Amino acid sequence: MRLFTSALLAAGAWAATALTLAPAGASAEGAPAKGGPNGANAGAASPIYGVTIPEGYRAWQLVAPAQEAAPLDELRAIVGNTTAIKAYQAGTLPFPDGTVLVKLAWKHTQSPEFATASVPGAATTVQIMVKDSKRYAATGGWGFGRFVNGKPADQAQHETCWGCHQALVADRDYVFTRYAP
Amino acid sequence: MRLFTSALLAAGAWAATALTLAPAGASAEGAPAKGGPNGANAGAASPIYGVTIPEGYRAWQLVAPAQEAAPLDELRAIVGNTTAIKAYQAGTLPFPDGTVLVKLAWKHTQSPEFATASVPGAATTVQIMVKDSKRYAATGGWGFGRFVNGKPADQAQHETCWGCHQALVADRDYVFTRYAP
Repeated sequence: MRLFTSALLAAGAWAATALTLAPAGASAEGAPAKGGPNGANAGAASPIYGVTIPEGYRAWQLVAPAQEAAPLDELRAIVGNTTAIKAYQAGTLPFPDGTVLVKLAWKHTQSPEFATASVPGAATTVQIMVKDSKRYAATGGWGFGRFVNGKPADQAQHETCWGCHQALVADRDYVFTRYAP
Repeated sequence: MRLFTSALLAAGAWAATALTLAPAGASAEGAPAKGGPNGANAGAASPIYGVTIPEGYRAWQLVAPAQEAAPLDELRAIVGNTTAIKAYQAGTLPFPDGTVLVKLAWKHTQSPEFATASVPGAATTVQIMVKDSKRYAATGGWGFGRFVNGKPADQAQHETCWGCHQALVADRDYVFTRYAP
């Protein structure tokens, strides 16, 4: 598992693995979907999955923070919609349809005021998981979206999502993040 | 500034600085206050300030994550109540009365599934700032609370709060954390 993970990262932040993936359900590969996870966002959609950035996610409840070491050097925070938080708090697995998780990521920078603290620098990516067991039946019920400056990353990057989640956290419905107490 | 910070930390997680501080306003030193910042929490209150853990804070909106290096080795997340978030988003300084900020902290542990990720381990402290410009007039309008396992830390630890915030972030109304975009 570690070797697999390291290989993924060494290949350069998800972009160059050899995984292949069939398009999920009825989503046309690479075509923007109509509406986002909450049906209200008309932004560009991720390739393969047709996931868009959900409106209002920045106000969603925190699941947990995380830190990503070099070469990414990021601070992260995973937030979830109400369906996600209820499932976490009740220990419900698999997550129900309608669950949306959003990972916000920033460069990890030294606090200018406090020597031992690192704080968020520039925003880097917003990454999304949407549970729809029918639409995404081929990928464990999950659709994925990775956005940089509000724009979806390319198809090659999206081809890496499912393989990694499937390989490493199948026993938690393919979700890495645990709820921080 | 850096020397001051390092000295504070070298002294052992806030506990042993030589700062002294007068009790704020009408709060009896060391006596539990009636009600928490939101008037609904009957838990034990912090010495000096009489701050309690606000009910429902775990659902509050994220201001920013942070990381604290050794010797604490913590991941942190700062959340704010509605008054706090509105002030951050509008750039309002000083923060209005009623602002409450809560810092959640966990030990920083290696993700068992992903080699380069660190995730929250055991919860360590919950730290709170409450803005009440009259009650806390002697400390920039802020009352402080530091809790371990739901119980307030001792008076010596609370004597360090104001001195450090005053010395390092007076230009941002004594608040370290910036809103992460």
